[in-house]
Amino acid sequence: MTLRTPYLMFIGDAPDQLAAKTADGVAFWRRQACLGQLRLPGCKADLGLPDMTIEEAAAAGVKTVIVGTTNRGGVLGAGWEPLLVQALELGIDLASGLHHRLADIPVLRETAVRCGRQIADVRHPTREFAVGNGIKRPGKRLLTVGTDCSIGKMFTALALEKEMQGRGLKADFRATGQTGILIAGDGVSIDAVVSDFVSGAVEWLCPANDPDHWDVVEGQGSLFHASYAGVTLGLIHGAQPDALVVCHEPTRPHMRGLPTYKLPDLRICIDRNIEAAQLTNPAVGCIGVSVNTAGLDPGAARDYLRETEARLGLPCVDPMRTGVGRLVDNLPG
Amino acid sequence: MTLRTPYLMFIGDAPDQLAAKTADGVAFWRRQACLGQLRLPGCKADLGLPDMTIEEAAAAGVKTVIVGTTNRGGVLGAGWEPLLVQALELGIDLASGLHHRLADIPVLRETAVRCGRQIADVRHPTREFAVGNGIKRPGKRLLTVGTDCSIGKMFTALALEKEMQGRGLKADFRATGQTGILIAGDGVSIDAVVSDFVSGAVEWLCPANDPDHWDVVEGQGSLFHASYAGVTLGLIHGAQPDALVVCHEPTRPHMRGLPTYKLPDLRICIDRNIEAAQLTNPAVGCIGVSVNTAGLDPGAARDYLRETEARLGLPCVDPMRTGVGRLVDNLPG
Repeated sequence: MTLRTPYLMFIGDAPDQLAAKTADGVAFWRRQACLGQLRLPGCKADLGLPDMTIEEAAAAGVKTVIVGTTNRGGVLGAGWEPLLVQALELGIDLASGLHHRLADIPVLRETAVRCGRQIADVRHPTREFAVGNGIKRPGKRLLTVGTDCSIGKMFTALALEKEMQGRGLKADFRATGQTGILIAGDGVSIDAVVSDFVSGAVEWLCPANDPDHWDVVEGQGSLFHASYAGVTLGLIHGAQPDALVVCHEPTRPHMRGLPTYKLPDLRICIDRNIEAAQLTNPAVGCIGVSVNTAGLDPGAARDYLRETEARLGLPCVDPMRTGVGRLVDNLPG
Repeated sequence: MTLRTPYLMFIGDAPDQLAAKTADGVAFWRRQACLGQLRLPGCKADLGLPDMTIEEAAAAGVKTVIVGTTNRGGVLGAGWEPLLVQALELGIDLASGLHHRLADIPVLRETAVRCGRQIADVRHPTREFAVGNGIKRPGKRLLTVGTDCSIGKMFTALALEKEMQGRGLKADFRATGQTGILIAGDGVSIDAVVSDFVSGAVEWLCPANDPDHWDVVEGQGSLFHASYAGVTLGLIHGAQPDALVVCHEPTRPHMRGLPTYKLPDLRICIDRNIEAAQLTNPAVGCIGVSVNTAGLDPGAARDYLRETEARLGLPCVDPMRTGVGRLVDNLPG
């Protein structure tokens, strides 16, 4: 699946900004592709984009409406269906990161077929994958891993892609989750792949390439997360990374969703990820740490980065506060 | 899904004994449940069971026909469908470990519905699972792990269940693959579960139990297999094993299906599996090694077990040659 741009961001009646975090991510990273937002009465989120109706979006050339809000249960809100039907009838595709498929809603599916439009439920893989073969392939790959879930792996990967492209390096972000897919326009939602095929799906996602080309692969989960570590390990083996960047958030009290599980020590986390990745690429190394210091004041953030850097002997950056330039400086040749 | 016994083993026109290995496993471990075998002209496999027609099986009280042979592409052989329809019409359920679902064959599905019979395609999970929660639960669990795939993890787990039950311990084999499910009569084919839910599915498979009850969980894959290690890690975390048994085959030249990957050293394999399992059960230990020495002559097998035992400081057994009693002797109290 490939998504057509430009987008209209549909955020419905999102009760707060967090409920629209998928849309927020797309609007942040694909600003030029987002022509407007559609908000319904009661919406408390704002992407800072021009408000548009479906008709206005069609007139402005929008090619895809992104359903970029989550609501409890993942179902559509009241009154949303007619608007999405209208979009399809005006020649606009739909894309959604919701758990429940838009294509399972009969009126949307039938309208899409009738109008020859695409519905991309990006959380659900649309093809079958082979089992991973573990064969080394040309091209270079960087993978973001982390001490926990939802800790900045996508953000860091996108920041790295931008910095690398800015320096004239050949680099492509490879999306492995729904927000990343909506940003990149394609990818595989890796945690929705049948477990036997996870490394095969990742091999497909970042295939052989030019020797000096970098795939910057979005990580998922954490080797230290009791619910999802298997997804992470399959992703690591399929990606065959040459370079790892470890992502961390220093103020998080416990592993996401697991109140009795503490975050791992950064040194141990780095060592275990390297150990795991060495199976399919013995030459792998960790090039640095990406810290989300949003929970610290500027002075404390600076101290944390400096102390962590001294302790680990690796560049430590915050993509928002310092940029990721020092990670790119440290890429293997 | 729960399979009704007794069984008729349907091995079609299996070209050799290996093609009937699923049926072979069921006949070995559930001898009393297997009333007979149905072989078609050209069949070169023999389970050593009485040959029966479908009518004879129905008259003998068979409750389930097990389609226990694999053929290229996983589809049914010519002339098989009418026999399976006949079984359904005579009140017999169907169970299959084939990749393609029997229930996807219209005439079988319709006949099953019409006759109120069950078709169990055991390779395919029939329910949804929650995400793993990592919460410690009562009861004890043993998990077989291995240096590679197809290296004796199911066989060892079944031998352990038998030995433990023989000593009056409360023990239940928990199946995670199709052959194991056909043997146990239920279970979850874990490599067919969507990756996000693997540890949750295993938590469901071996739930809270009496404090002195052992679940003997069948392992899958290997942490050292580039195609499937993620499945293995999710299984380890969901099982929260108290005891690990590491399975090995000393003459295998390379990892199954991966000619450029060597098998890991046993010591490293043990350490990595313990390290991984400690995330959800810090008290885990390895109680011994189960070696398939079929490729060695008796003297060499004895030497290999003795030397390995001395090197690792752990009981090393071959379930076929020595039994698994010394592993059970070493279970934690």
